[in-house]
Amino acid sequence: MTKNLTTFFSPKTIAVIGASADASKIGHIIFKNFAEGGFAGKVYPVNPSAELILGNPAFKSVTEIPEEVELAIIVTPAKVVNKVLAECGTKKIKSVVIISSGFKEIGKEGTRLENDLKKTIEKYRLNVIGPNCLGVYDTTSEVDTLFLPAYRLGRPQKGSVAFITQSGAFGSVILDWAAQEGFGVSKFISYGNAIDVDEVDLMEYFLSDEETKVITMYLEGANRAKELINIGKKVSSVKPVLCLKAGSSARGTLATQSHTGSLAGADEIYSAAFKQAGLIRVSTIEEMFDYARALSTQPLMKGNKIAIITDGGGFGVMAADYAEQEGLVIQDIAEKTKRNLSKCVLPFATLRNPIDLTGSATGAMYKCSIEACMQDKDIDAVLVILLFQPPNIESDVVSYLVELKTKYSKPMLVCSAGGNYTQLHRDILERSGIPTYPTPDRAIKSLSILYKYNQIKSKLK
Amino acid sequence: MTKNLTTFFSPKTIAVIGASADASKIGHIIFKNFAEGGFAGKVYPVNPSAELILGNPAFKSVTEIPEEVELAIIVTPAKVVNKVLAECGTKKIKSVVIISSGFKEIGKEGTRLENDLKKTIEKYRLNVIGPNCLGVYDTTSEVDTLFLPAYRLGRPQKGSVAFITQSGAFGSVILDWAAQEGFGVSKFISYGNAIDVDEVDLMEYFLSDEETKVITMYLEGANRAKELINIGKKVSSVKPVLCLKAGSSARGTLATQSHTGSLAGADEIYSAAFKQAGLIRVSTIEEMFDYARALSTQPLMKGNKIAIITDGGGFGVMAADYAEQEGLVIQDIAEKTKRNLSKCVLPFATLRNPIDLTGSATGAMYKCSIEACMQDKDIDAVLVILLFQPPNIESDVVSYLVELKTKYSKPMLVCSAGGNYTQLHRDILERSGIPTYPTPDRAIKSLSILYKYNQIKSKLK
Repeated sequence: MTKNLTTFFSPKTIAVIGASADASKIGHIIFKNFAEGGFAGKVYPVNPSAELILGNPAFKSVTEIPEEVELAIIVTPAKVVNKVLAECGTKKIKSVVIISSGFKEIGKEGTRLENDLKKTIEKYRLNVIGPNCLGVYDTTSEVDTLFLPAYRLGRPQKGSVAFITQSGAFGSVILDWAAQEGFGVSKFISYGNAIDVDEVDLMEYFLSDEETKVITMYLEGANRAKELINIGKKVSSVKPVLCLKAGSSARGTLATQSHTGSLAGADEIYSAAFKQAGLIRVSTIEEMFDYARALSTQPLMKGNKIAIITDGGGFGVMAADYAEQEGLVIQDIAEKTKRNLSKCVLPFATLRNPIDLTGSATGAMYKCSIEACMQDKDIDAVLVILLFQPPNIESDVVSYLVELKTKYSKPMLVCSAGGNYTQLHRDILERSGIPTYPTPDRAIKSLSILYKYNQIKSKLK
Repeated sequence: MTKNLTTFFSPKTIAVIGASADASKIGHIIFKNFAEGGFAGKVYPVNPSAELILGNPAFKSVTEIPEEVELAIIVTPAKVVNKVLAECGTKKIKSVVIISSGFKEIGKEGTRLENDLKKTIEKYRLNVIGPNCLGVYDTTSEVDTLFLPAYRLGRPQKGSVAFITQSGAFGSVILDWAAQEGFGVSKFISYGNAIDVDEVDLMEYFLSDEETKVITMYLEGANRAKELINIGKKVSSVKPVLCLKAGSSARGTLATQSHTGSLAGADEIYSAAFKQAGLIRVSTIEEMFDYARALSTQPLMKGNKIAIITDGGGFGVMAADYAEQEGLVIQDIAEKTKRNLSKCVLPFATLRNPIDLTGSATGAMYKCSIEACMQDKDIDAVLVILLFQPPNIESDVVSYLVELKTKYSKPMLVCSAGGNYTQLHRDILERSGIPTYPTPDRAIKSLSILYKYNQIKSKLK
């Protein structure tokens, strides 16, 4: 049955149960996020033993709040959670995030507590995220249940990538990293022990979430394999899903039990299921980031033929090696395109693909040769290797690239490696929607995902 | 025959042939590096059509310089190179770096010019690096033939890793990156077309270079396979050699011809040769950097049994997965070690390996649990996953790690991922000789190299 998860992301009123006046408590940090952050709705602190929290009168129980509450966030000690959850039920709050830990992940005693929660959820037909999680961060509504201060854990800007994660630590790293890299996020959900809302529900939600173009997911174990495959197919035919599945080794599987209490199954079964569902399995965090940046900013590749343009021969050679490994074709340059190229490059440049503009390249040579390749109907995408160390490369090349991105509808990725001077230019490109990669292997793999997902999508349609 | 390459790195006197008064010329930049940089010896500008260069009287030819010259750097147009090279011979200069391009890499005409150079080299028994290269950068003597200004191409600090590269672009990226990351380099050589001095000579030189602990190498093609294997074995039995071989694909091979003019051979042959020689083949620039940082700062791993300590469960699970893939063993924690651990961790921490201190971990808990693992004779190395997002992690943990690095002689690597706050702490660790990695896969692979190289070394001895 489809769950209505809308109130998790854009509630009008919120109750923070376990809100605290003590600044060191997470119940304080979360309440403060809402009271002082960008959230536009109303927020009520609930704490039976407090009078005022940040100037707001505290309620003894949610049941005392004199208006409808759409979302409750529970940050009390584990033992009290079931009682306050039942009060949410009485108050007819439909959506609850349980941040508190101390459940299935700590063993027998916690499992007993978690089973009690399950009964309450069923009784009141609640939608619950958690327990043992970071909860929700929405860059539009500014719902923010993260209990870590922004100087430690940056909040990313608004964008089109959704992150779903079973692991809180993984989630906090992802958010912090995304904020640092200027990477735009639509919504973030850390769902921990998945007592109720799980990855299947969330994928279903994101299928029709218009802000989200790419879904990324960290998974340790899935309890509803069949549903995962079904919803995976539906979603993958519309938008790409990148999935990092951990717990593939014997030791890793053991470790997931004491982590989110989930039982990771045989890795091969997951691989087969992901494939059937059209989910793209990634093996590292870097891959997840790299692919998400390409998929959220670039059109898909209709075919697998690419052109590589470079100002560093060695980087061109390496990119060609990696392209072959990834099943991309380094397209022979057509005579007509060669003529176009020869008008604007140096006499000793190499017009064979990879096109080597040499260390004497200028921004204008890049512009002209990228255009020549964009206009060649046999080329499906362009990898621009742009090293900023050579002496004639000026900042104008960045404006040219931004201009070409809007002018043509073929994918274009950039590979630029180096120190501060390079980083400065990479940042501008990134913020203009042109993904940049520090090494040719990462650029090529990201390009190939644009082709691979295109194939997945066609097959599912 | 062993070449004496010492004067390339620590010459007393240098002539820059093709030095220029025109600030836009590379002959100007290189002369300026020496005249105004940290180089302590004497430097003479040579240019038949200039009077003064940066206040120094220019000589018409090296033969006119009134004292012995130990190193000549040629930056003239290609057509003039052979003439001035012969003059170097007449002047009895033994070491020459030819920066100029326009030789074998541009085709037939250039190959003819390059063959002329060969005859001159033979006639005067010269040692020549280049042509078509960046030349030499030595962090001790401050010999610096790089023709790129420091704001574009950072100069790294002094350290123990040597870089040998056939590709100039690859070299410039490596240096710039190393400078940015605070990564210490001993010597850097970009040798381009390898007309005389090649990777075999350079490996032989670095075998006995005391400043160099780790050799890294970017190679497109090797002309002396047998010698490479022989010297590889000798060097690898003393210090590790990391080798990135490009041109493994059909297209990549083609591209190397117009790049450094070398003929890359069948990839499998190289793999077999590297293996026989004990050279560690890496497949990406990131691997090269990651492994070099581990090998240059850490002792080797005597066995393959590791402990993982984490404050983020998901990261522990992923590290365990990668460890199994890399052939490392997640060692069962001995009862005695468990007792030591239980004295200092939280009651709900996981003492099974990976040891999960949870998101409530403190610096003191890290210190105590790392010590417990260091003292366990069944554990060969410790991977510390240290996420800085959790609330109780303070900067003291960095001091503890630095303290433990000197106290124990087992390898210890750190995995820390996130934004600015994390980066701040990673930088301190890096500069204290503790390599840090942003993702568990990169940390685990770097750890495994400490074991793999230990096996290579024992086999060669």
